[in-house]
Amino acid sequence: MFEQLGLIGCGLMGGSFALAMKRAGLVKRVVGYSKSPSTTERARQMGVIDVEAPSALLAVSGADVVLLAVPVAATEATLKAIRHLVTHKMLIMDVGSTKRDVVDAARRVLREHASSFVACHPVAGKEVSGVDHADADLYHGKQVILTPTERTDAEKVQRAVHLWEALGSHVQQMTPEAHDAAFAAVSHMPHLIAFALMQSISSQPHGKEFLSLAGPGFRDFTRIAASDAKMWRDILLANKQELLEQCSAFRRSLQAMELMIETGNGDGLEEVIDKASQTRANWRMGPGRK
Amino acid sequence: MFEQLGLIGCGLMGGSFALAMKRAGLVKRVVGYSKSPSTTERARQMGVIDVEAPSALLAVSGADVVLLAVPVAATEATLKAIRHLVTHKMLIMDVGSTKRDVVDAARRVLREHASSFVACHPVAGKEVSGVDHADADLYHGKQVILTPTERTDAEKVQRAVHLWEALGSHVQQMTPEAHDAAFAAVSHMPHLIAFALMQSISSQPHGKEFLSLAGPGFRDFTRIAASDAKMWRDILLANKQELLEQCSAFRRSLQAMELMIETGNGDGLEEVIDKASQTRANWRMGPGRK
Repeated sequence: MFEQLGLIGCGLMGGSFALAMKRAGLVKRVVGYSKSPSTTERARQMGVIDVEAPSALLAVSGADVVLLAVPVAATEATLKAIRHLVTHKMLIMDVGSTKRDVVDAARRVLREHASSFVACHPVAGKEVSGVDHADADLYHGKQVILTPTERTDAEKVQRAVHLWEALGSHVQQMTPEAHDAAFAAVSHMPHLIAFALMQSISSQPHGKEFLSLAGPGFRDFTRIAASDAKMWRDILLANKQELLEQCSAFRRSLQAMELMIETGNGDGLEEVIDKASQTRANWRMGPGRK
Repeated sequence: MFEQLGLIGCGLMGGSFALAMKRAGLVKRVVGYSKSPSTTERARQMGVIDVEAPSALLAVSGADVVLLAVPVAATEATLKAIRHLVTHKMLIMDVGSTKRDVVDAARRVLREHASSFVACHPVAGKEVSGVDHADADLYHGKQVILTPTERTDAEKVQRAVHLWEALGSHVQQMTPEAHDAAFAAVSHMPHLIAFALMQSISSQPHGKEFLSLAGPGFRDFTRIAASDAKMWRDILLANKQELLEQCSAFRRSLQAMELMIETGNGDGLEEVIDKASQTRANWRMGPGRK
């Protein structure tokens, strides 16, 4: 049980966390701050936060748990804004989709207090953003990856594990590097591809007509292309190295299939598709989930 | 109202069509044939068809409407098998995902009877196949593209339009060429990409671990990768030219984004993602649907 959550960023991710914490009876009071005053006000009106803080620094004052729910590129500036009120007693977490850059920023900015920072990536989200879409169930049944380092306080890691598990999440721990390599493959690449395909089709002379004919397969395939532009710009840039490696691997696979199509190599094509199809048919999302 | 449907191919697409026709009271009797005798038997046991035909030819005998629901690559051989019993009174349709090859095969094989053939593409499907997944609602609310040519009997086209509309489908007409260009972009490319991405990830040393971490975005993005291998091999090969053009366009878009990531061009990246995101957010599937 926590006394006070300092929430920095009251959008979809932060707002959902506050609602889930409250519903689970894990926190007495939520003090929130968002860059946009109208978001902070809306969050209070909706009961997502109890008190509006006039700055990130003041959102942290008196908190025993702090959540940074800001775009990954804003992490360092946010940590700088709050560092003067960070104490050893606080548990500080984030929800960013990349971890190497966030862990580095925490070490640079928080110095010895970086031991209180437990980097988190809840594998949950929606293609819509904003506090209006905040949902107390967002993290329930979802995976949350923690990427503590050898400098992270072990007791803080345990508190973070218990907190997420109390929200119904499945917690895993790994290094920031392993995290970033995996999510380049299974999250950042699919987003990059979905954006590139939308761009490719819509910039063609008949793109609009083509899109008007698309069916349910296209609908699901491109759902993630509707994601927030600033947030994904930051993620793709933050995980540049791993992402470009995945991009090369993907282009090799695509070009091999193109060659099979061009040369009419039906057997080779069927073999690749069959393996892909079986791998996908046997895949299940995360532990304990469908 | 039809007297007898001759159904060739009693799988997901054919079986769903027979069930929908029966439920709508549009046909008195369904005579079915599948290459695999166990499929034909199962279709009869399930009430999808009323009578098992021992051959494609005999499924056509006495029918006033015929549906070819076989893989696109099997269209020409199937038309050859039935042509001796095709009459001017019959309405003959298919459900293939490519149309130029199907229309060409019909003209070659059926000769003067090709006027009875109305090429159809119902934009509906599932990532599972087989008669066990047949569903009377599969075509309801979905688009069906008809690609008649100047040789097609106008009265047959009208009957096909009325039939599909009676099943709750939204009917559009276009040339086979326009159809194939559009579906290369919005259906065949997404499938090819989904197969290539699964292949790219699963062939990496840590592929299995990566896949175990994937979340809801990946789940929806790769749903179509579980599609049937033989069916998609045939579609990708049948629409080779349009598909390879779409592939080039997509690779140009992807490489432009890679370059922006590599050079840290955040503004350019945000602009592309923002446009893609808005296009996708404003997109709605087909007429009268969500």
